Amino acid sequence: MPMQPSPFAPETFPTMPDVAGARFATGSAGLRYRGRTDVLLVELAEKTVVAGVLTRSKTCSAPVDWCRKALKGGSARALIVNSGNANAFTGRAGTNTVDETVKGVAALMRCKPSQVFVSSTGVIGEPLPATKLLNALPGLKKNLAAGPWKAAASAIMTTDTFPKAATRTADIDGKTVVLNGITKGSGMIAPDMATMLGYIFTDANVSRDALQEILSRGADRTYNCITVDSDTSTSDTVLAFATGAAGNGRVTKASDPRLRDFRRAFDSLLLELAHMVVKDGEGLSKFITITVSGAASRKAARIIGLAIANSPLVKTAIAGQDANWGRIVMAVGKAGEKADRDKLSIFIGGIEVAAEGEAVAGYDERPVAAHLKGREIDIVVDVGVGRGKATVWTCDLTHGYIDINADYRS
Amino acid sequence: MPMQPSPFAPETFPTMPDVAGARFATGSAGLRYRGRTDVLLVELAEKTVVAGVLTRSKTCSAPVDWCRKALKGGSARALIVNSGNANAFTGRAGTNTVDETVKGVAALMRCKPSQVFVSSTGVIGEPLPATKLLNALPGLKKNLAAGPWKAAASAIMTTDTFPKAATRTADIDGKTVVLNGITKGSGMIAPDMATMLGYIFTDANVSRDALQEILSRGADRTYNCITVDSDTSTSDTVLAFATGAAGNGRVTKASDPRLRDFRRAFDSLLLELAHMVVKDGEGLSKFITITVSGAASRKAARIIGLAIANSPLVKTAIAGQDANWGRIVMAVGKAGEKADRDKLSIFIGGIEVAAEGEAVAGYDERPVAAHLKGREIDIVVDVGVGRGKATVWTCDLTHGYIDINADYRS
Repeated sequence: MPMQPSPFAPETFPTMPDVAGARFATGSAGLRYRGRTDVLLVELAEKTVVAGVLTRSKTCSAPVDWCRKALKGGSARALIVNSGNANAFTGRAGTNTVDETVKGVAALMRCKPSQVFVSSTGVIGEPLPATKLLNALPGLKKNLAAGPWKAAASAIMTTDTFPKAATRTADIDGKTVVLNGITKGSGMIAPDMATMLGYIFTDANVSRDALQEILSRGADRTYNCITVDSDTSTSDTVLAFATGAAGNGRVTKASDPRLRDFRRAFDSLLLELAHMVVKDGEGLSKFITITVSGAASRKAARIIGLAIANSPLVKTAIAGQDANWGRIVMAVGKAGEKADRDKLSIFIGGIEVAAEGEAVAGYDERPVAAHLKGREIDIVVDVGVGRGKATVWTCDLTHGYIDINADYRS
Repeated sequence: MPMQPSPFAPETFPTMPDVAGARFATGSAGLRYRGRTDVLLVELAEKTVVAGVLTRSKTCSAPVDWCRKALKGGSARALIVNSGNANAFTGRAGTNTVDETVKGVAALMRCKPSQVFVSSTGVIGEPLPATKLLNALPGLKKNLAAGPWKAAASAIMTTDTFPKAATRTADIDGKTVVLNGITKGSGMIAPDMATMLGYIFTDANVSRDALQEILSRGADRTYNCITVDSDTSTSDTVLAFATGAAGNGRVTKASDPRLRDFRRAFDSLLLELAHMVVKDGEGLSKFITITVSGAASRKAARIIGLAIANSPLVKTAIAGQDANWGRIVMAVGKAGEKADRDKLSIFIGGIEVAAEGEAVAGYDERPVAAHLKGREIDIVVDVGVGRGKATVWTCDLTHGYIDINADYRS
């Protein structure tokens, strides 16, 4: 289906520096799409450590099962990702496909199967033949190179309308390290511990435990705070690979002050990638930032924020550029977390429209209307019971979402 | 906004017998709508007992607060309902409006304020002036009559496209009693202990405790198992009034075998009313029944069922007549309740499309496609972990929902 690019699609792909110790190749395994790539192979230097966060879905995909197991080893030499088929709900055949794939990649890369990471994204419930991936491997290996970031980000797309990548640098103990990330996702986005697919590559020399802690904490405030449609995927996966090739002195603890700048860069990279997923939300016309304060805890604030962000009535009101904040009140009420109705206040585009449990009499509607005509919408809600605060990001719900999803498969 | 009637709108309004001890009048208080009624007054005989279930929203409306308090008395002499304004999130002014309204009605009906029940439905956050309701009262009182069920069901509508009523009779200890119900609701439907608005009137002579138990249990399996858009309202209210005028020997316990037929009729009436709300779901083209079995408990089955029913991806797939059952797998996974992915089976229109955690090889797609072209869609999911079972009802998500909700207020 030909799709309009998202109104937030960037005009140009970012300039990405190489990450020492990581090489990339993409190709066509002929899984589903015609005339585009659908498989990505990444080769990682010896001593690369890996961290990951994976979906908590009870019906997670076979590759997610595999990654959960392989993450225990903490060491990575290769990553293979295909688009077009999620290899989810494919029974024993799906598990066999993963097993054969990692064996094939391990043989090619001369590493252990447990050092091979696998992701699949696309349709759920259709068999994924391992042979299609295995046949593509020799060609991919020949083409491995440090540079093709745009090709890598493109090969993992499904209903995405633009390839998503971002880059940062950070200083660790006097050495500059690179952090590059690619991600994909557009629908079925309501990550629970992770999002659809995201990969961070860095040449920093850090331990696996430090990397895992930085990733888990970072994902909780970024990927886990976005939603497009409340539908948590079977395949959500964010993996971080640190090749160690930058040559900084090894850092083993996330709390080490030498990692302060790295953590800042890492979190900022995660946030940019997570925002890109929302900014390519299926059919969106607006990007919405929702901050909830005054909640009983940060967790409660996030739950209330997501209740607002997932409300079809709030999302359609914003699509219609309608300051229908009564629907925000409704969503706060349904979230189930503590909220004091009679202290509730709501700001749209910085203008207080409701305070102390009722409409602000005679507030100036013009700046609110003007804000709602814009592309980036800002909502702040204080629920008046505590000091918990969280920000979540979402998009509006438009006819485009219906168009895309009423015939995605067919 | 002129709206297409729901494809499920019945051709005729049902023939409703009188309920001895209940009289009705409708009128225009000029709250919001032009050219239609927006207020309903019901007079109830002395000794009428009342039971209710109300929204658990943390931002519930002032009338819900009032009903919760008044239900403690258990006695009712009047009900007043307005449409067009929910009197929700209206601060102290909203509470004052309720207080003035019940005082006015109590004076008119010569009863205690605590015997007056109030509901308001419509826009959230706009002041509701009590004087408009009070001014309408004398005219309403003059017109009270036993018969106008269609007028009563029409006066409480908001985005509804047809008035909703149903009737049953039951035998209690040799006496025939009547049960009539009216309800409204179309969007912001994901009841949590009750739905938008529903009223049951019966001339049965039963105690308030028995009536409350029958209502609470019944609502839990009917109104609390429907969803249009996952958005729980601030105003959900179902009240049941029993005038006692049928003259059967008073029954004080819900478990009394003399109430067996009454309970059957009551539950059946609740279910028909709840289905009517879904069948007028905003923009719907299909009515969907989802049965989940094999769950850890009935509650878990209901949570999984609602996760499927609320999934925008499932709802849009059905709107597109697409047997995309992978999205059902996804929704089971995100529900958070126990499910055995590798034992999961799914039936659409009675055809098993997935079994034991994967697609049924070579199942006949034709009857499934034919079923999905129909208006009533039947989905059965077994999650393979226990004996918990529940059925929920919802509708599909179409362009119509976006049309209605992107400019409801304006």
